[in-house]
Amino acid sequence: MKATTPPLLLTSVCLGLLAPLAMADPLPSWNQGDNKSTIIDFVESTTTPGHDDFVPREARIAVFDNDGTLWSEQPIYFQLQYTLDRTAEAPDEALDTPLKRAAAEGDIETVLAGGSQGLDELLSVTHSDISIVDYQADVRDWLENARHPATGRAYTNMVYQPMLELLSYLRDEGYQTYIVSGGGLHFMRTFASDSYGIAPQNIIGSTAEVEWTDDGDTPVMMKRSGTLWYDDGPAKPIAIERHIGVRPVIAVGNSDGDVPMLTWTTAGDGPHLGLLVHHTDGEREVAYDRDSAIGGLDQGLDLADAKGWQLIDMANDWLTLYPEAP
Amino acid sequence: MKATTPPLLLTSVCLGLLAPLAMADPLPSWNQGDNKSTIIDFVESTTTPGHDDFVPREARIAVFDNDGTLWSEQPIYFQLQYTLDRTAEAPDEALDTPLKRAAAEGDIETVLAGGSQGLDELLSVTHSDISIVDYQADVRDWLENARHPATGRAYTNMVYQPMLELLSYLRDEGYQTYIVSGGGLHFMRTFASDSYGIAPQNIIGSTAEVEWTDDGDTPVMMKRSGTLWYDDGPAKPIAIERHIGVRPVIAVGNSDGDVPMLTWTTAGDGPHLGLLVHHTDGEREVAYDRDSAIGGLDQGLDLADAKGWQLIDMANDWLTLYPEAP
Repeated sequence: MKATTPPLLLTSVCLGLLAPLAMADPLPSWNQGDNKSTIIDFVESTTTPGHDDFVPREARIAVFDNDGTLWSEQPIYFQLQYTLDRTAEAPDEALDTPLKRAAAEGDIETVLAGGSQGLDELLSVTHSDISIVDYQADVRDWLENARHPATGRAYTNMVYQPMLELLSYLRDEGYQTYIVSGGGLHFMRTFASDSYGIAPQNIIGSTAEVEWTDDGDTPVMMKRSGTLWYDDGPAKPIAIERHIGVRPVIAVGNSDGDVPMLTWTTAGDGPHLGLLVHHTDGEREVAYDRDSAIGGLDQGLDLADAKGWQLIDMANDWLTLYPEAP
Repeated sequence: MKATTPPLLLTSVCLGLLAPLAMADPLPSWNQGDNKSTIIDFVESTTTPGHDDFVPREARIAVFDNDGTLWSEQPIYFQLQYTLDRTAEAPDEALDTPLKRAAAEGDIETVLAGGSQGLDELLSVTHSDISIVDYQADVRDWLENARHPATGRAYTNMVYQPMLELLSYLRDEGYQTYIVSGGGLHFMRTFASDSYGIAPQNIIGSTAEVEWTDDGDTPVMMKRSGTLWYDDGPAKPIAIERHIGVRPVIAVGNSDGDVPMLTWTTAGDGPHLGLLVHHTDGEREVAYDRDSAIGGLDQGLDLADAKGWQLIDMANDWLTLYPEAP
């Protein structure tokens, strides 16, 4: 006699198997609360056909700042630490200004006091007159071997676990995720695919002048001194418009340099979501906002309420900060 | 008695149904010949898992020039015709130089003699101090109403049917298709999605300086005079590297301005394909190459053989030039 399964039981088994999938929490490292539910409600409404806030797939664009938003940025931007480390290894004759010598000695205060002009001076030591290929090989080498002074972690292990979950969740729901950062384009591309699942063509960043050289056989692109694009403040929405050409639906940042990007995104017709990571977590990371020389958030705090931007309270909203160390 | 179908017959029916799908010609407007078979062989080998020339999906990048490659460019670039038409409608006080007055009178010879500096002068009349939104609305209006002097067609009906097929074929096989053109980014975005199926973020072009203005409520991006990026010659591979970050596998162009882009593509390790459209068709279009002020192809003809680039012989390789008029 052939065994048969009662239909009701079969249905129950199937529902039992499906339920965990349907109910799985897409953001397990986010504490239950207003921010988490706002994000999930927004994603669900913009991706549900027939919903008033439905957004067609090609318009589902989400832009993320990098430093302080997707990974840590204290005590100094990690790319700046790379510059200091490499300057310290530079031959004496390359250290031909007081600022370069200060950088070689790890004198962060003097380096930060030099502002963006000083930064250009330092980048000329470490980021210029080198092919893009060689530069990226050197950055990869540094990322593999350098360790953060406070955590002892590799820098790529200081990406935020809750943001990795948000990026994956958005992509699973048909969003295209982009980085829009003041950091260097070629620097970020060395790890963004592996760390964030973000492809090279979805990264917008600061860029140096590049020179094309061709000996007739092997063309090479050389990074030269001089900044072609410093991707911060109003330059961010301009670069988004130029690179993507579609106004984002979601923008996520953490500093005043992200205010124009959030402004542009949330001034759009239709549904939009602006998120600002507020670094409130002095226990697991560093608590900072209005007065910080790195990642200062002052104007953004003032505007958030009127603009309807959500402030992510890192200490309370995030159950986990970094991924398990490998 | 239950009717049964003999297995062999069933198989034959299935094969009969499947055969037209499997054998469908992806490039019906291309004449049988070396160029067509080279393209199809290349696409098949780069997309067949296990093949020596297999290229993973994320690396399947194909870049196309626009003017003279995806649509016609004679007697003058269509965007230049837009500029002339709008200059002719400009108030007298805007025509404050001899070149602007020549443009308003449709004196193409004088306009072309002005070179790129003269072009900048004309763009200041029609492409500057206007919001991107308003500019694109005006371009859409022009594209809808203007007709080509020789063909009487709307300009968007002068896209090349064989290239539409190639774009679709490549995308069906997992390639990402990009435009990399000396034409204006914002100009091209007004029609590239509809005409070519190419999304705004896959268009690289020349760009003016853009200014961010924000009255606190409604931010606006204004096109200003001055060129931020003139996307021709060596600027093309540099822009490809910056925008995409992956060396293309396929590059298609038609003029010497595309030579560095093809050089970069075909200097890559692994499989690569360089195609140059050779305008040999004086019957259906215009026959031109080495001496043409528009879309000149001189260096490219000299290099093609040594570089292994395929010359597409428009008169012989393309059975159809333009799509059926709507």
